[in-house]
Amino acid sequence: MFKKILIANRGEIAMRVLRCAQEMGIETVVAYSSEDAETLPVQFATEAVCIGPAPAAKSYLNQDSLIAAALAYHCEAIHPGYGFLSENAEFARKCEKNGIIFIGPSSRMIKGMGDKQRARALMKKYGVPVVPGSDGVLEDWKEAARIAEKVGYPVLIKASAGGGGRGMRTAYDANEIQAAFENAQAEALAAFGDGSMYLEKLIQHPHHIEVQILGDRKGHIIHLGERDCSMQRRNQKLLEEAPAKILTSRQREAIHKAAVRAAKAVHYVSAGTVEFVLDKEGNFYFIEMNTRIQVEHPVTEMITGVDLIREQIRIAAGLELSYRQSDIRISGHAIECRINAENPAKNFAPCPGSVPFLHFPCGCGIRIESALYPGSKISPYYDSMIAKVIVHAPGRLEAIRKMRVALEELTIQGVDTNVDFLYLIMFNSDYMVGNVDTGFLEKDTEAIIRWGEESRKQSRR
Amino acid sequence: MFKKILIANRGEIAMRVLRCAQEMGIETVVAYSSEDAETLPVQFATEAVCIGPAPAAKSYLNQDSLIAAALAYHCEAIHPGYGFLSENAEFARKCEKNGIIFIGPSSRMIKGMGDKQRARALMKKYGVPVVPGSDGVLEDWKEAARIAEKVGYPVLIKASAGGGGRGMRTAYDANEIQAAFENAQAEALAAFGDGSMYLEKLIQHPHHIEVQILGDRKGHIIHLGERDCSMQRRNQKLLEEAPAKILTSRQREAIHKAAVRAAKAVHYVSAGTVEFVLDKEGNFYFIEMNTRIQVEHPVTEMITGVDLIREQIRIAAGLELSYRQSDIRISGHAIECRINAENPAKNFAPCPGSVPFLHFPCGCGIRIESALYPGSKISPYYDSMIAKVIVHAPGRLEAIRKMRVALEELTIQGVDTNVDFLYLIMFNSDYMVGNVDTGFLEKDTEAIIRWGEESRKQSRR
Repeated sequence: MFKKILIANRGEIAMRVLRCAQEMGIETVVAYSSEDAETLPVQFATEAVCIGPAPAAKSYLNQDSLIAAALAYHCEAIHPGYGFLSENAEFARKCEKNGIIFIGPSSRMIKGMGDKQRARALMKKYGVPVVPGSDGVLEDWKEAARIAEKVGYPVLIKASAGGGGRGMRTAYDANEIQAAFENAQAEALAAFGDGSMYLEKLIQHPHHIEVQILGDRKGHIIHLGERDCSMQRRNQKLLEEAPAKILTSRQREAIHKAAVRAAKAVHYVSAGTVEFVLDKEGNFYFIEMNTRIQVEHPVTEMITGVDLIREQIRIAAGLELSYRQSDIRISGHAIECRINAENPAKNFAPCPGSVPFLHFPCGCGIRIESALYPGSKISPYYDSMIAKVIVHAPGRLEAIRKMRVALEELTIQGVDTNVDFLYLIMFNSDYMVGNVDTGFLEKDTEAIIRWGEESRKQSRR
Repeated sequence: MFKKILIANRGEIAMRVLRCAQEMGIETVVAYSSEDAETLPVQFATEAVCIGPAPAAKSYLNQDSLIAAALAYHCEAIHPGYGFLSENAEFARKCEKNGIIFIGPSSRMIKGMGDKQRARALMKKYGVPVVPGSDGVLEDWKEAARIAEKVGYPVLIKASAGGGGRGMRTAYDANEIQAAFENAQAEALAAFGDGSMYLEKLIQHPHHIEVQILGDRKGHIIHLGERDCSMQRRNQKLLEEAPAKILTSRQREAIHKAAVRAAKAVHYVSAGTVEFVLDKEGNFYFIEMNTRIQVEHPVTEMITGVDLIREQIRIAAGLELSYRQSDIRISGHAIECRINAENPAKNFAPCPGSVPFLHFPCGCGIRIESALYPGSKISPYYDSMIAKVIVHAPGRLEAIRKMRVALEELTIQGVDTNVDFLYLIMFNSDYMVGNVDTGFLEKDTEAIIRWGEESRKQSRR
């Protein structure tokens, strides 16, 4: 096992990795920005090294600083957490070149899965369902129209080299296909100098279902069940749960098998997540594989009892998985709420500041992941997520009720937060019956709040 | 299910019951002393009613005040927590007489189990092993000598009416038996006006093993595994864990069966604990049955996933147990540390005061039970236990390491605590191999601290 590792992250995930490593008897060096000098990870790690100022480009994204710090402090490995450099193939390659173990998959794997089109083709080859569409690059708008006819409208025309929504257009019927193709292509040419286009059926307001995977260097690959992360706002997840209420047991089995097939296809090593969309007819399609630990990993830990960070570190050290597939039992239901310092009434504007008073709920089935402490500061330079409240109970309704009580008790003074908004979601009748797809939070926020308040009045608690 | 219950307790157990009841959709009324007006349960309950000043005799032990409050606030039931009136048969009877459900067993059951001699005789009748000794009252010192010869020295001579150590003497050999009998009897006559004496073999430095039981009104009785609570100081438990490392699987099965037999013998209803001592030869003997929820119940909850307070409330409401014996699976290892405001270096003198800063550990496998918040006050009028830190991990060594890291992170300012003492116990080599009996903490505290410090130096963490 490693003697010492560097943690190239901040906030709650830095604390999560720190606690875990220290429990494993591993010394920790936390790399921090000068903005974060007063934060909990810096106080709690065995050693701490400042790697530059805010913003992240000058510190948490500064690859050479991080490599230099790891070498100077004799760290055998680097844990990247999530975000920042966690899915940066170049950084992973630099670690490899410098004899430092990147706690995650190989740079080659990160690169392979980062190319969404290549990943799509690979998955299709291995029999993992992908969103219906073209095989490779389209000749012209007429070919697009032919395929659109086959897969059914609406469809998305996407640039092969695209990203961030650029070079992408939706066509809702045959009248729109030519314009969509031509406009998307023109944009792609302008933005990327590459007019290669492909087509995918548009899955409207799907459920976002993802499967947690662990793979070791000996070729063992297991899944740890799925999560439903459909509660999203602008592609940012707000609330995640496991298992996914919407799946039948047959769908669940099929999606788990598909995820394992996907991971086996690429000989996946480390913790990873295979993401799917589930349409209204119950069909699911691979969308991408995340080659890092995810924010929502605790819900899986709660229902399986598996410490995913521990496994991730063990795998990186060359050890075998601690579990076989038959050891994994799903027990109960877990929900995670992401507590953000933001104001839902002001279009979720971030709200940095000081937290003079803080009280977290605790007790049976309650788990908190946070780096906050009374008196701590929330920096404007980083993500507004300041804590995660995770509950675990025998059933989904009990978990919802536990979350309500936990959010009632949670007290964060000094900054605006989304706690009340999350609390009202816990009373939303659509949420309660599991009728929430990725379009749910696109609705008017005020309406969501109003519905929550009405349901709350009707409910005894 | 109940609409509203009264909580006749304070501190962490009041919060434990409050959170659980609110999760179940039950309104809560907390009965508090004026000393406790600023405490968390008062802020968190649906309603709060002051039932008198400190000390407890004028409030938490004031039966009539509590009954009056429950009636005035239309509470259908009272949860007594532990301590205070939780094992007071008279209070349970008063509840029954006033049409209030006492969340616990019947007053008859409490009384029966409270009479330790009667319980002993009953257990013996039903084949539950009891400490070898006399059957009922001794004729004279000669009969005591005969029985002592049979069961083997050392023996305890005890007053039938005894309690609190009065009317009790130890005889280490035949030379001491006459004096022991006569002195104990004289003391018993003086103290209780009753010279009835009985004899028990003295089990020196046993392990304290207890089995958690749940029984419902339909006659279902299940056990939830055992706990090892041998780490005691003056009969006060300091640290508890589950399962008990010392038991072989055969012993474990036998002790579980004996506990279920004991509970079935008395048709036990509610949550209860059957306590045993385990001698150096591996024999176990019933000592008593506790007819309440216990401080250490969370370790059982962690390894079984069962919410014991929830079951207790359900049972009181007349519902069936949510689990059959075959549903109960023991998973991993849990340890609880009782955090006390006291100074181990000053003979564990209590240390009340204010807590201006507070930071609890959190994360994977960490559970906190507490009513503390930053700025809260610790009253000199009540027990010095201010929090419980509970950890859960796949194995015992991992749990110990998790506890070390949790205790390192735990920060309570303003009062002395036993956190450092507990931390050093986590490095004690005897504790680590599971070689701790009820005599362990009788050793010199400084020696324990020294041993811990040495082990810590040798250990990487």
